[in-house]
Amino acid sequence: MPKICDQWYRDILRVLYQRRTVTRRGIIEATRLNVASVSHTLQHLLQCGTILKVGELQTSRGRKREVLTLNAEAWYFAVADLEGSRLRFALTNLIGDIRFLWEEDWEFGNKLNVERVINGIKTVIQNGRPEQYSQILAIGISHPGIMDKNGCITAVNLGWSDLSLAAEIEERFNIPVFLEEAHRSCVVAEHWLGAAKDVADCAYVIVGNGIGVGIFLGGHLVQGHDGIAGELGHLTVDLNADDKCNCGKRGCLEAIASSPNIVRQYLEKTGGDGEHPYGHRVLEVYEKARQGDAAAIVVLDRAARYLGLALSHLTNLFNPQLIVLGGDIIYGEDVLLPRIRDEVLRHALPKAAENVDIRVSNLGADILLKAAASLAFQNALESPTLLRKICSPISFELPAVKISGPRSVAAQKVPRSSRLRTPASAS
Amino acid sequence: MPKICDQWYRDILRVLYQRRTVTRRGIIEATRLNVASVSHTLQHLLQCGTILKVGELQTSRGRKREVLTLNAEAWYFAVADLEGSRLRFALTNLIGDIRFLWEEDWEFGNKLNVERVINGIKTVIQNGRPEQYSQILAIGISHPGIMDKNGCITAVNLGWSDLSLAAEIEERFNIPVFLEEAHRSCVVAEHWLGAAKDVADCAYVIVGNGIGVGIFLGGHLVQGHDGIAGELGHLTVDLNADDKCNCGKRGCLEAIASSPNIVRQYLEKTGGDGEHPYGHRVLEVYEKARQGDAAAIVVLDRAARYLGLALSHLTNLFNPQLIVLGGDIIYGEDVLLPRIRDEVLRHALPKAAENVDIRVSNLGADILLKAAASLAFQNALESPTLLRKICSPISFELPAVKISGPRSVAAQKVPRSSRLRTPASAS
Repeated sequence: MPKICDQWYRDILRVLYQRRTVTRRGIIEATRLNVASVSHTLQHLLQCGTILKVGELQTSRGRKREVLTLNAEAWYFAVADLEGSRLRFALTNLIGDIRFLWEEDWEFGNKLNVERVINGIKTVIQNGRPEQYSQILAIGISHPGIMDKNGCITAVNLGWSDLSLAAEIEERFNIPVFLEEAHRSCVVAEHWLGAAKDVADCAYVIVGNGIGVGIFLGGHLVQGHDGIAGELGHLTVDLNADDKCNCGKRGCLEAIASSPNIVRQYLEKTGGDGEHPYGHRVLEVYEKARQGDAAAIVVLDRAARYLGLALSHLTNLFNPQLIVLGGDIIYGEDVLLPRIRDEVLRHALPKAAENVDIRVSNLGADILLKAAASLAFQNALESPTLLRKICSPISFELPAVKISGPRSVAAQKVPRSSRLRTPASAS
Repeated sequence: MPKICDQWYRDILRVLYQRRTVTRRGIIEATRLNVASVSHTLQHLLQCGTILKVGELQTSRGRKREVLTLNAEAWYFAVADLEGSRLRFALTNLIGDIRFLWEEDWEFGNKLNVERVINGIKTVIQNGRPEQYSQILAIGISHPGIMDKNGCITAVNLGWSDLSLAAEIEERFNIPVFLEEAHRSCVVAEHWLGAAKDVADCAYVIVGNGIGVGIFLGGHLVQGHDGIAGELGHLTVDLNADDKCNCGKRGCLEAIASSPNIVRQYLEKTGGDGEHPYGHRVLEVYEKARQGDAAAIVVLDRAARYLGLALSHLTNLFNPQLIVLGGDIIYGEDVLLPRIRDEVLRHALPKAAENVDIRVSNLGADILLKAAASLAFQNALESPTLLRKICSPISFELPAVKISGPRSVAAQKVPRSSRLRTPASAS
């Protein structure tokens, strides 16, 4: 058998990952590899147990075709989402289905100790079935803030400055760690799984503890020269504003429209005592606005106006087809989105403003965990060591594989609290 | 001889265009085509006269290698630049060297009649040598404003709304017409010829009659979903400003910092009578500021502040390595650029702001004509009809070809007026 080159493995595994089930001919068409290369590679992957035959397809024109799929339970990822107002950790299979979930509260405004991240990862790894432990291929983390070219993270919202997170975690678990900024990993997830599938020019805006944007242009994710593109939250939107941002500047979008800052402005207006943990009450402010509370309406109106202004900048500069909003704003769609849309129409050139579709994400609360798993898979394919691991004979006992329908979550220790549900719209 | 496929022609002609002179091995390395494909294609192109042998390269390791070049005088382009405060037309050879130049004044604020564009093109075509006329491959035009997917141009500064410029001109000359928005064609020219060569993430900002940006990210030109990305001039930079923009909105960057609006503000402050044609006096305002005129300093300071704010948005969103400024601002570098740089440092995140190099273009006044010729060449390669023309035996008599050094301009009817020279910096 001729030598199989790594690129054939990558191309074929990517097609299997995207399509879930596919025939040999489908792989040949999608990869544009020649028939012999595909046959040799598939034969090897089948022998290894990396892929499975799961059925056959027959047409009126005759010959049956085998339907192939990735053996999704052959490998697992431990993933973390550090962006939200709770810390979330999960064990996922190769294709990002969650097998175990762990959530814990964390008070916004405090420094996040790396030890807590390590403990969260340890929790999901230890709570998996024992045979899963040896099958963990990599750790994937979606984090706020920015990562420089050396992999150091600066995230004011977590109190991190030039932190070598990957190195610290890798040292503890001896498993490769892949990091991605949350707003960018989200746009990747939307692109693979959600509303932005097949949309070449789109932007994914997170409005939560921070504000950032992941931008796909012509099908390419914008990284920037130093890998820190997408800092929508630090656009100065009001030169005269007093609102001080965590970055040290004044008048940043984030200082006006992020969840903690919406709460701050509401408490300033109402003289509230801040008894609830900082950052946990933005859904309450949304609810107050629905009930007609004047202070809540003024604060949210201001946030929406500047969000709309910033989105009009995106629209004028990129002319995107779609802007997807995610994060806490999903639960405030009814009170924020109409005003945001108005402002985009007001400030962007009509041709661009009329053609851009602005909506909230429908991928739900798990998007960042799925995004981290998806990025871990993509990165694993690019790593020669991990690629060799994926494409080697599987030595452990494999559980039975189901291939139809979404997989159920094996264990979900923490029930979703009520604030994670979409609130009923105002009546 | 086997069939030569169009893509081989395109790949090989692009390498010859970029490198000017190249060996057969250089072409094989750059195109990654196989040796036989390259040999067959080159043999055909040499027979046709599309490419020429112009020398040989010998190394100590032996075998001589032929040096090949495009036959630059085999084909010509008629090009136009409608962005500036004068209308400029030229006849260029295949590689964009200007062979004949025509400039005429045009008063900013008036509607530009298409007949004037047609006459300008006719002038450069008729003033070429007779044998050049039959060799004109295409017409290329850099225009202000935006073009929609149907090729219709809306340019408030020219008084155009949904104008089918290409169709009107093509009908008259029966020569294919290729259009590009000026700020985008500039970034392409900077990418091929200027400061942005080999820079993957850069932005080219034009500040002239209008303000726009062409953005290269990861080596790709950002087009946008409807092809109208880059509207930097219509970012609302001051929500409270009274300055009315040509687009109908208030507080656009263009309404504050474009050349005609700098002049307008200066005249408003000084009670000037506007005796000079609108838009022609921005260089005088620069000069007044150098001499310490308070009104000029205030107006330019305001323009620079908002230009800096807009550039900080670009920096936060794209994290570019380089921002090149072109247009009238080239002549006001000393009075505008330091303040612009300060504002970017003030408003953009430090990591992105410190790493971005902001400077004026060194490609000079001909950049848009060269850009139009470059885009016409790229588009001609993509057109099957024009590609066939380029790769067919040349039937007309060819002039002698010089290959070393820049080519001299054969005829330059209109001397550059003094305002196109870089003004001496303030002493």
